[in-house]
Formats: sequence, structure tokens, C-alpha cells
Amino acid sequence: MSANRPIDITSRCVSTKARAGVLRTSHGDVTTPTFMPVGTQGTVKSLTPCDLREIGAGIVLGNTYHLYLRPGISTVGRFGGLHGFMAWDGPILTDSGGYQVFSLAALRRIGEEGVSFCSHVDGSEHFLTPELAVDYQERLGSDIAMVLDVCHPHDLGLAGTREAMERTHRWAERCLNSHRRQEQLLFAIVQGGTSVELRLESARFLTSLPFPGYAIGGLSVGEPKATTWAVLERTIDELPADRPRYFMGVGAPDDIVRSVAMGVDMFDSVLPTRVARHGAVFTPTGRVNLRNSIYRESDESLDATCDCYTCHTFPVAYLHHLFKCEELLAYRLATLHNLRFMVSHMHNIRQAIVEGRFAEFKEKFLSTYKPSDEQVRLEQKRKWFDAAGGRKAGVG
Amino acid sequence: MSANRPIDITSRCVSTKARAGVLRTSHGDVTTPTFMPVGTQGTVKSLTPCDLREIGAGIVLGNTYHLYLRPGISTVGRFGGLHGFMAWDGPILTDSGGYQVFSLAALRRIGEEGVSFCSHVDGSEHFLTPELAVDYQERLGSDIAMVLDVCHPHDLGLAGTREAMERTHRWAERCLNSHRRQEQLLFAIVQGGTSVELRLESARFLTSLPFPGYAIGGLSVGEPKATTWAVLERTIDELPADRPRYFMGVGAPDDIVRSVAMGVDMFDSVLPTRVARHGAVFTPTGRVNLRNSIYRESDESLDATCDCYTCHTFPVAYLHHLFKCEELLAYRLATLHNLRFMVSHMHNIRQAIVEGRFAEFKEKFLSTYKPSDEQVRLEQKRKWFDAAGGRKAGVG
Repeated sequence: MSANRPIDITSRCVSTKARAGVLRTSHGDVTTPTFMPVGTQGTVKSLTPCDLREIGAGIVLGNTYHLYLRPGISTVGRFGGLHGFMAWDGPILTDSGGYQVFSLAALRRIGEEGVSFCSHVDGSEHFLTPELAVDYQERLGSDIAMVLDVCHPHDLGLAGTREAMERTHRWAERCLNSHRRQEQLLFAIVQGGTSVELRLESARFLTSLPFPGYAIGGLSVGEPKATTWAVLERTIDELPADRPRYFMGVGAPDDIVRSVAMGVDMFDSVLPTRVARHGAVFTPTGRVNLRNSIYRESDESLDATCDCYTCHTFPVAYLHHLFKCEELLAYRLATLHNLRFMVSHMHNIRQAIVEGRFAEFKEKFLSTYKPSDEQVRLEQKRKWFDAAGGRKAGVG
Repeated sequence: MSANRPIDITSRCVSTKARAGVLRTSHGDVTTPTFMPVGTQGTVKSLTPCDLREIGAGIVLGNTYHLYLRPGISTVGRFGGLHGFMAWDGPILTDSGGYQVFSLAALRRIGEEGVSFCSHVDGSEHFLTPELAVDYQERLGSDIAMVLDVCHPHDLGLAGTREAMERTHRWAERCLNSHRRQEQLLFAIVQGGTSVELRLESARFLTSLPFPGYAIGGLSVGEPKATTWAVLERTIDELPADRPRYFMGVGAPDDIVRSVAMGVDMFDSVLPTRVARHGAVFTPTGRVNLRNSIYRESDESLDATCDCYTCHTFPVAYLHHLFKCEELLAYRLATLHNLRFMVSHMHNIRQAIVEGRFAEFKEKFLSTYKPSDEQVRLEQKRKWFDAAGGRKAGVG
């Protein structure tokens, strides 16, 4: 297998497009489909690398934007990159910083050369280009790097979306041309908003370039769910079967099952870790909130089917108590559980594919798992996006 | 050894009053001198019972006041007590709630029967008596319980201090009379403020009663250090040699060495865990703050002599980064280190006693360890006490 084809597809579902495989990286193999916990600032919030190993995490994600601002790329570089700095010797994927620049930073000005922005930490001015995004990720030493893309709200309009997409394509080429580290995989990002036509155009353009993997960006960012699935399915079909496909920013257990059925191999999202810190934990029947007073005296374990430390050690009443008292341990125990849930979930999905019963698995899971109400979800996402300044993002 | 004499003194220093021993409890033996990490609300902040085991913690402290308010004594009782609730199977000492009632709660009214107060959480009204304090601790199932005492500022004046002390004595008798659980040790608390005369009177009165152990309370609460040591030494000399002696609320590594030299066996304090959450960590040469910019690029470990997970896993620059970003992991890694430092410190003290070289150990430690500036310390303690309403505490 060449570096340009880092994935071995070992099993395929006969009735859906689901596939199981092994992704090869410089820091080890990752079985797919896989979910990547997000370690924004060089730490998966509240957990040690040791905790991550224990729950079976295969690959973690680091945010270039955050690490660039704090502690700075050269500081991380002094420690041989992110692996040495955060003491994690497994695979790491870094994003390009684009999404954060477009959603967190202030005073963005986007031109052909790159994007200028002000730090959300101290207001200082910065300039990011495709070449710098690659350079930073090479110095962070991640196993998989992402191209710098133009991110925008889903309702930008067709002309604006096309303009952003075409710039994303030119930036992807510049990233590819400046990329030097052979042991690092550089993935392209398909854009095109909610237009199937643009998505197909983007996929065709990017797959004409020698990228070892492809991500779908700018989808599941607040548009109706039906649109998400329609666009995803058509886009995935346009991607080469022998390259990994990564659906960015998706982490709801039910969304993952649906996406896998369309042929997605990789996922990342802050969802499992962020909601954990608010007391929301995943169970086979859906999300429940540990702050709910029904748990005040419960001597049951959070999830009887789960083998994580939290579930096999503490009664739910104790977890409820920790959240009511806002104890630091609450955040860690809930995070441990949610990530172990995700690892087990991906394992179950994979086993079902390998054993030729993924279609039944999918049907059963989706009929048992109660999704968070879509309206609530969309509203939350929009609020967050608005608060983060995402609405202000445009193409200049 | 009877339940009334739970400690075996196995070694004595020939040139100081330091002693090493083994304290027997229902949940196992504890080597002394020992330091007890504080788990206020049923958790040593940010750590699991598993972490506590790994760093070698021997016995932890729980706060009856906090547990009574949240989740409530009967809820904890449903899980077989605090051991089952927090999943810690080692020894536990609970305080009586007195100190928190006098320092945290609002609208205290103290009478002969007990003390009424309003919860610092929701303002609800409560009434605590010596009998209730014992009952609560019996239901929490701690291995060592404390009598309810009257706590007051160190500068209350002689008449007020005497009045508080005499009530503490009557309450101690009531606690002893209402105590039922034979496997639980009930310790008395010597009071008497900064008056050596009152302290001796208190020690004599309480040691005339059949308590299995004695604590020194209301000392090291803001009075000058010279006074602390003078009062401590005279008080300890008045306590029986065959019972454990517990100096409440003391946790500075240098204060512990001085106290051990006077014959103290047990300590507790939030100091190591509280300062850790502010980035202050113990080293053999004194406390340093990880937020200091001198650590921004440091590739050294926090303490080369320490064997804790934090020290043998991460460069100091990473810890500095976590504190600057206020990452949850920062609090845990610093807490792990400080508590491991305390466990090792107590081990080193004990070994020095056992091997007949404690006097040299003491001299060497105190000449190497730079104490936090006393003025800063007193001011911080006074500010905290004032903020907590401690000044308002009086005897009514």
C-alpha cells in the first residue's frame, strides 16, 4: 500500500455502502469506521493520555488554531511536536485551523492569499495562508493534516458558496504543493454547501489531485437533516473507494450509524465530550441527563451494558451528586463514559459490518436509540454558531 | 489492643518527641505520621478513588456539614455510607460539621443545646447538636468520627474562649454518651484558643474521659506562628502517649515536620489540593507556581525526585500551558502531584523516625524547603476567614 492509499478496506456490507478497514498512520493502525475524540488545546478535556488508552481511543484530533495561539507552534515543536508535548503516542489528526478562524476568531478578512483574523484570546492580529496551515501542521507532527478551506454558513447562497468552493480548491492545490513531510497524510476537504451540484463538482476536482484521503466539510452545520443525508450520499459516491472518507464534525451516535451506511470511515466531534461536561451521557436508548432529580437516589449504574470505569464503579446517585455540586470529578467521569460509549459504538458497528449483519444492526440501533430532538439540536447549533460569530463569516 | 487504644507506637525519636506507629481502623491500618487528603463533598477534588490508591493515600477526610446538605445523610446511608457512595474502601475520618457551621454557614445562633444555621447552598435553616453530629457520622459510616466543638476566631478574648471551651467539653461528653457504633472511633477535640492555661485545662478534662484519640482544634487559624508552636507543644505534652494525636487543618510540609517533632500523628488540610488548583505545586525546595512564565518552554519535569504520573509523564511547559488555558486536566495533574508529594513526605518522615535520624531529617528539610512567606500566609488565611464569615462567629 502506498502512502497515497493509507486505507485497507477489509469488509463491505452487501446491502448498504458501509465498509470496515484499517487506516495506516505513522503512529499505528486505526480500525475503521472510527470516531476521533477532540483534544482542542492538546488535551481531551479532563482526560490523560492514559485514560484515552484505557477506553481504547484509536486516534485523537488536535486544533491547529488553538495550538498556534497557545502555546504556539514553536513551543510544541520543541517537544518533537504534539505527540511529545501532550504525551500521546497514538495517531493524531490536526485540522487546518480554518474552521476555528471562521467560527471563533474576530475581524476576519478573507482574500485570495489567505485569511487575517484577531485572536479570540487576546485580540492580537494574525494571518493564515494555505502554506502556513501546512507548515504549522508539519511542525505539530500530526499523522494526518487537513488542507485550509473556506468555511461559511450553510445559507450563504449559491454564488457565494461557489466562490468559497473555488477558493477552497485553489487553496487545496497550494496546500498540496507546499506539503513536504512524506510520513504525514494530507487530506482534502470537499465543500459546496447544500448544493449537490457544487458538491459533485468539488469532489471531482479534488479527487483529480493526488490526495490520500478526503473529508466532507461544511455539512451538518445547521441545515435540515434531510439535506445533510441527501448531500452526503451523493458526495460520498463521488469519492474513490480506495481512500478514507472523513465526515467532519459529526458525533451523534445515530448520525454516525447513518453516515457509515453511506460509506464514511472517520468522524470527529466535540459532542460526546462537551455534552458530558453538562451532565448529558449516552446510553443505548439515547441521551440522559445526570442532573435530573430522578437520579438522586438511584443505586443503579449509569449504563449496565457499559464496561467503563464510571459505570462499573459508581452508583448513578453519586454522579448526580457530583454534578449538582459542580465537582471537577463529574466532568471527568461523564467524559470517560461518553468516550468509552463511542469507542464501543464504533466497535459494534465494525463487528456488524465484518460479520455481514450491519443492515440489521443499523435498523435495530436506530429503532432503540432515541435521538435528541432535532429542533433542539438545530437551535443549539445555531445559537452556538451565532455566539461564536459564525454568521459574520463570508467570502471577501 | 482495645478499640480505645487504636494506635501502636512502634518507634520513637530519641532527640525529639516524634513517633511512628500504626493506627488500626475498620477499613485497614494507617501508618503514622499520616496526612489525610480532604474529600469535602465525597470526592477529593478532581481525583477518583483509583487515583488515591495509586498515589498511596492511606486515609481520607469527609466533611459532615457538606454531605449533610448535599446529598443528605440518608442518601449516603442508602449506599452503606460514604465508603459505598464514593467507592473508597480505605479508612475515612469525618469531621463533626462544627468548623464549617462556624466558617461557612450564615446566621449562626449558638446555644447550650446546639447551633442553628442557614445553609450556604440554599439558605435553608438547620439545627446541629452534639447528638446529631454523632448520629450523622455513624450513618456516614466513617472509621473515625469527631465530636462537635465550638469554633471561634483566635482573638476572641480570654472570657469568650473559656466559655467556648467549657461548652466544647460539655458537648464532648454528650457526644461520648450518644455514640453507639463500637467499630467507629470517636475523637475529642482540645480547644482553648491561644491560652496555654486553657489548653492544658482542656486537655486534662478531655483525657479524663475514655476517648480513643485526641485532636487539637482552633489552632493555626490565623494567630502568629510562634504562638502556634508554643501552644501546640504544651498541649501535646498533656495528651496520653498511647492515643493518636491529630492536629486539625495543618498541611504545609514544613509545619508538618515541626509538628511531628512535637509528637503529632495525624494531619489534614485542603492546602495541597486547593493550592494545586491555582497552579501552586510542592517541590523539595518549596512551592512554585506553574503559571509563572519561566515555565513556558521548560522541558524539565516538575520535580525530578517525584515518581507521580504528572512528573514522569509531562514536561513542565505542558502543565504551564494547561493552566494558562484553564484546562480541566491542569487541576487534576497538579492535585495528583501535590498529594503524592504529601504521601512521600510522610513516608520520608516516618522512615527517618524508624531509622533514628529524624532530627537530622528535620534540620535538613527545614533548611532546604522555603516556606511560603508567613505574612502572605496569615493575610490569605484571614481574608478567607473573613470572606467565609468566620469573624462573625461568636459564642451566644
